This record gives sequence, structure tokens and C-alpha cells, in this order.
Amino acid sequence: MLDQCQIPLEEFQRRIQLTQEAMRGEELDLLLAFSTESEPAYVRYYSDYWPSFETAAVLIPAQGEPVLLIGPESLNFGKARSKIDKVVQLMDFRESSQPDYPGSKLPTWQEIMDEYKPKRLGIAGWHMFPHTIMEDLRQAVKNCDILNADAVVRGVCMQKSENELDCLRQAAKISELGFQAVLENIRPGMTEVQLAGLATAAMLANGAEATGYPVWCCSGPNSIQAISRPTLRKVRRGEIIHFSVGAKVAGYSASIGRPVVLGKCPEETRKFMQVGLDAMLITIDNMRAGTAAADVAKKTHGYIREQGYGHTILYGPAHGCGQMECEFPFLETSSQYELKQNMVFMVDVFLAEKDMGFRWEDGVIVREGAAEELSSYKRQLNILEV
Amino acid sequence: MLDQCQIPLEEFQRRIQLTQEAMRGEELDLLLAFSTESEPAYVRYYSDYWPSFETAAVLIPAQGEPVLLIGPESLNFGKARSKIDKVVQLMDFRESSQPDYPGSKLPTWQEIMDEYKPKRLGIAGWHMFPHTIMEDLRQAVKNCDILNADAVVRGVCMQKSENELDCLRQAAKISELGFQAVLENIRPGMTEVQLAGLATAAMLANGAEATGYPVWCCSGPNSIQAISRPTLRKVRRGEIIHFSVGAKVAGYSASIGRPVVLGKCPEETRKFMQVGLDAMLITIDNMRAGTAAADVAKKTHGYIREQGYGHTILYGPAHGCGQMECEFPFLETSSQYELKQNMVFMVDVFLAEKDMGFRWEDGVIVREGAAEELSSYKRQLNILEV
Repeated sequence: MLDQCQIPLEEFQRRIQLTQEAMRGEELDLLLAFSTESEPAYVRYYSDYWPSFETAAVLIPAQGEPVLLIGPESLNFGKARSKIDKVVQLMDFRESSQPDYPGSKLPTWQEIMDEYKPKRLGIAGWHMFPHTIMEDLRQAVKNCDILNADAVVRGVCMQKSENELDCLRQAAKISELGFQAVLENIRPGMTEVQLAGLATAAMLANGAEATGYPVWCCSGPNSIQAISRPTLRKVRRGEIIHFSVGAKVAGYSASIGRPVVLGKCPEETRKFMQVGLDAMLITIDNMRAGTAAADVAKKTHGYIREQGYGHTILYGPAHGCGQMECEFPFLETSSQYELKQNMVFMVDVFLAEKDMGFRWEDGVIVREGAAEELSSYKRQLNILEV
Repeated sequence: MLDQCQIPLEEFQRRIQLTQEAMRGEELDLLLAFSTESEPAYVRYYSDYWPSFETAAVLIPAQGEPVLLIGPESLNFGKARSKIDKVVQLMDFRESSQPDYPGSKLPTWQEIMDEYKPKRLGIAGWHMFPHTIMEDLRQAVKNCDILNADAVVRGVCMQKSENELDCLRQAAKISELGFQAVLENIRPGMTEVQLAGLATAAMLANGAEATGYPVWCCSGPNSIQAISRPTLRKVRRGEIIHFSVGAKVAGYSASIGRPVVLGKCPEETRKFMQVGLDAMLITIDNMRAGTAAADVAKKTHGYIREQGYGHTILYGPAHGCGQMECEFPFLETSSQYELKQNMVFMVDVFLAEKDMGFRWEDGVIVREGAAEELSSYKRQLNILEV
């Protein structure tokens, strides 16, 4: 097993300080960063806690100590994980089955908000924040503006620290071991789900704390699915079988995406995959600090179009990466920002036409010169004799 | 691998019909059932599709055909899975990284709602429905009441069909195989995460389409966590190591929960685990159609209190089970309903005190007489000589 990466306590404290500075710039007197089981990023970023079944939030005042807000069943879990000392339970963060917990005495939003009496409250996780919790909050903070604070948090977390980069490097290394387990064991007749399970177990046996997202194996007709979930379909010779395999290390999720063909590979399949691979290499080559993100996207999509595959483009060709394997910002032809040192992206070239598709995916750390690649493992046409 | 269970197309259509009847009872002219990656139940129930990265909803008019609403990257995924013919993409269901998808032309809520012009719109998934989508909806359906429709859907799905029961039986059988892989391979020094990975891979190799939830292994000091996630802690002899292992089959999630001790088991640990096991058996024995749910809970918690462990109770002792491993209703001392034929519960006895805890969990199908047990595999004090 690889050495265990961790984010030190001081870095969590520094994140709070930087966020408080950014809040003052926006005249926010309170920030509430919300997360769920499948979108754990903001709460993990500030507290190291990540919810399961229940939801959670971190409350950050413009001055003073933050509070981790969790649900009724997670006190021991929360206390064991949290880098924030004060942990408070709220009924609004209970699980979707909505237990009563008869006899439990949890504070109300009113009691919590009376300590702060905010005039400008920012919410991070704005687009997933439940309307019922928003209603409860509004009742508790009358005469308070409630604002989208996603940009405040993103400003703090977009350029990664050395510790964060180490976690991402390790997550990529472990993702390679997941894909290696696939390459060593794949045979025609295995199910997509089974292959996803092999990759998952290999990553969990080698230091991942979890997968970065639900691992995908998409074969044959399923290969055209950009977002997917593995099925019980058995993989076959001669078809594209593509894998998106990602490990999570100390909250940071990397990924590698590779197509595989078993046995003979039809020429048109080979050509299509090669165009995708070349598009990925072009993207990586263009990703340098100071470059306009849109220019990178235009060059990559321009190349794919020149090769006659413009109709196979769905998105991208890259997206931010950090606590979420896919986090803000996307890199698109419409992007309005410049690449900066220590931003981390997943170059993610997904192309699909009528009956076949694939994803090439690898992480890069933006530098002044050539990007640092998180992985280039088996970045080749993997056509296996089995 | 076990035979593959499926819910037939006719049953999906029947669910829509039953929901439309229930909607008329509430004078709803439109219902929107919302789901996320970690809370996929409602969308899966009506469409067989379950989102990843993006969110989704099913739109059901009081009369006429339903529509599956998905995000910008999931069209091929959605079409391959959906039992609903009409699939429409909406920007509001995009992933949290918020891509622009320049050039994509997706319909607005206004265009969608203009087809229906609802006066009473129900939303299922009420407590997780994002406030931003609620705002967009409100703009598109002025002069329309928007109501919590969770109870409408629950009324349709609470008593399970024979096909659903078959899926749950199979999910429980595969969960047993996951726990069996743990029992056969566990050794001191393995990490919690690694053991969770072993269970996961075994389930995915034996017909599960996924885990029912993120599998837990909680050891030593972590054993007091009711909700948890496995860590890189190495398991040791003489401590409680408890497992919650659940497979998902055709959308239905079962689970088994068992504590394990390696080597010598201290007497107080043995006694504590036995009280939990007896509490589980008492609960199962009392779960019969026609019984008040609260009475079952009172008897179980009464027994635990009599044994001197009242302080170790956190919740329960059971909760609904179906598409979510933990779904409405909880079975608590405050419950206001009677058990009915073909309701499915997870009997879930979690007890924890200062430095040790465990979960005993098994599924039951409520009958007129004794409940049908989904599993009783290794429901014993598992004290292993390794």
C-alpha cells in the first residue's frame, strides 16, 4: 500500500481564514457550505468530514470559529473525522427516510442563527441547497440577504496547495492500480459490473479511502454513454469497452479513462480511438498557465473536427478536479477564464457516434511550462490478446 | 452468478397508473419526482433510470404519458435505461461543476410547463429538491400551488409487489456473499477500506448491479459510529469490527449488518452483542401485519433497557427498505402507522456505548403471521480464530 497522504490541521484552519478574508470582500457576515453524500466537496474541504445518508454543512462566520452542522445519527462519525471542534446536530440534515428520533433535543435554526444575526448570508452549494432548508433558514434570519457564495469558496480552493497536489498524485497512482487490475483480469464474458468491482477492490486494497465516483465500465452499445453506470452486460471481443476508474485519497478524487478492445480491433474503431487519443495529447500540450481556457478547447475541438469527428463531440475537453472528480470550472469553448498555476484539470475527451464511444481521461497540474501529468499509464490503444 | 431479477415494463406502467389515481385523489394535475446520484429512488421507481453526476426527475401528468427529465450529458445513458419513452434534457439537471455546453439547445421549464399549465403541482423528493430549481419552476407555473407529494408516491410504493420482493430477496442473498467474502478473508492488519472493497467486489461479481449504499466496516473506536465510512485503520484482535454490507439488484437495496471479533472476545463485549442480537430477534418476532409499529419499537427498546443498555440506543429498531436501503417509514416508538402485508423493513439494531458499538441488521417482509426473513446468514456471534 502507498503511503497515506493527509491534509494537516493547519491547512484546514488556513482555509477558514482565507474564506473569511474572501467573505469580507463580499461583505458576507456568515457563510453556509452545504454537502450531500454524492456531493461532499465543500463540507469535506473545511472539516474533513463527509456525510453518508445524511447531509451536512459548515457554518463560517466572518470572524470567529466555524461550526460543523450534521444530522442526528452522525455525531460519533462527525466527531471522529471533523477538523472543526464545534459540531452541532440539526434535524434538517437527517436522512431522506425522515426518522422522528423521539426524545432527541436538537437545536433549531433560530437558536443557531440568533448567535450570529447575519445581514448577508452566503450559501455555497447553492444549486443543490434544498428549498425546505432554505425556507427554514429564511424564517430564522429575517431581514437578511441570502446569496450565492459558490464563487467565494471557489476563489479559495481553485488553485491547489502542495498537500492537495500530493493527494491528487496519489489518487491518480491508485487509479492506475485499479485499471491495472482490469487489464490483468479482463476476459470476454465478464460483466461490466464485475470489472468495475475488480477495479474498485484493487483501489481499496491499495490505499484509496473510496472510489472518487461510481466506477464505470461501458461496453459495446453502452460505450456511447458519456455518463453511465456499469450493467450486467457481458463484455465481448472486438467492441470498445471503456473504463473510467478513479480513487479518492484524503478527499481528493482523480481518474483515468481508457478504452480497451479484446481480440481483433476493427480499423474504423482503431482510427476513432486514435483521434481521441491525439486530441487528448493536444489538449495537455496546450494547457499552460496564462493560456485562455477557451483557446485550449477551440484547438482540441478544431482538431477533432478536422479529422471528421466533429459530430462526436459532447462536451469538454477538460474539467476541474479536486474534491469532486469533476468540479468547477469546466474547460469549454465558451470559458471566460485563464489557466493558472496549480489549477488541476481532468483532460476528458469523450467522443461517441452511433454505435461506439470512448473516454480518454488523465489529470494535469497547470504549470508555467508543460503541465505536470498525474498519470499517463497505458495511455495507448489497449488492444488485448485474450 | 444468481439469475438476474428485473421489474417488467408492465409494472413500470402500472406504477404510473396507480400514481395518477393517487394524484386525482389529491387533485394534483402534475407530479414531479426528483432524484440525485445518492438518492435515486423516485426516478428509478418510475423510469428504471438512475442518475450519476447529474440529477433527474420524472414528470407525471394526471392523465397521459410521463416524461423522464435528465441532464445534458445523459441522453444515451437515459435512453438505454428508461422505461419511459419520452426523454427530455434540461440544463437545471446538469452536474455540480456547471458546464455551459456551448451551442446546446435545451428546452426551458417554461416550454415544458406550457404543455401542462398545472394548477396543483406535486413534488416528490420534497426535502431534497433544490431551491434554485424550485425558483425556476415557480417562474414557469405562475398561479400554481406547488405541494409536497412525497405521501402520494409513498402510498403507491410502500407495499411491495412480488417482483420487488424477488429483487430484495436476491439483493439479500448477494449481500450474504459479500459478508461471506469478508469472513473468509479477514485478518488482523487489513484496513477497514480494504475489507469493504472485498465485500463490494464479491457482490459485484455475483450479480449485484451496485452496492446498495457505501459499504461500512467500522472497527475498534470507529465501531461506535452509527453512520460511518470505512477508514484506513487496520483491524485488530479483540475489538468489535462491524460490517454493513448491502447489494443493489434492479434498483432494490438490501443489507446485512453483523459484528465480528477476531481472536478472544472480552466477556462484556460478548454480552453487549448478545443483547443486540436478542433485541433483533424480538423485533423480528413482533413484526406482523396489523401490529402498531410503535408497539414493536417499544417492546424492543424496553427489552434493551431491561438489560441495562438503554443508554446505548440511538434510533430504530427498524426502517423501511426498497429502492433506498433506508427508506420511509422508520419504525420508532413515535410511529403512527400499522404494519401491513408486504411492507419490507430492515430490522436495524445499532447500539453503542463509550468505546464499542455494533449493528445487527436483516430484512423482513411483513406477513399476517411470522415475517419472511430476507436473510439470517451468520446471524450469530461471529468470533473468528484468526
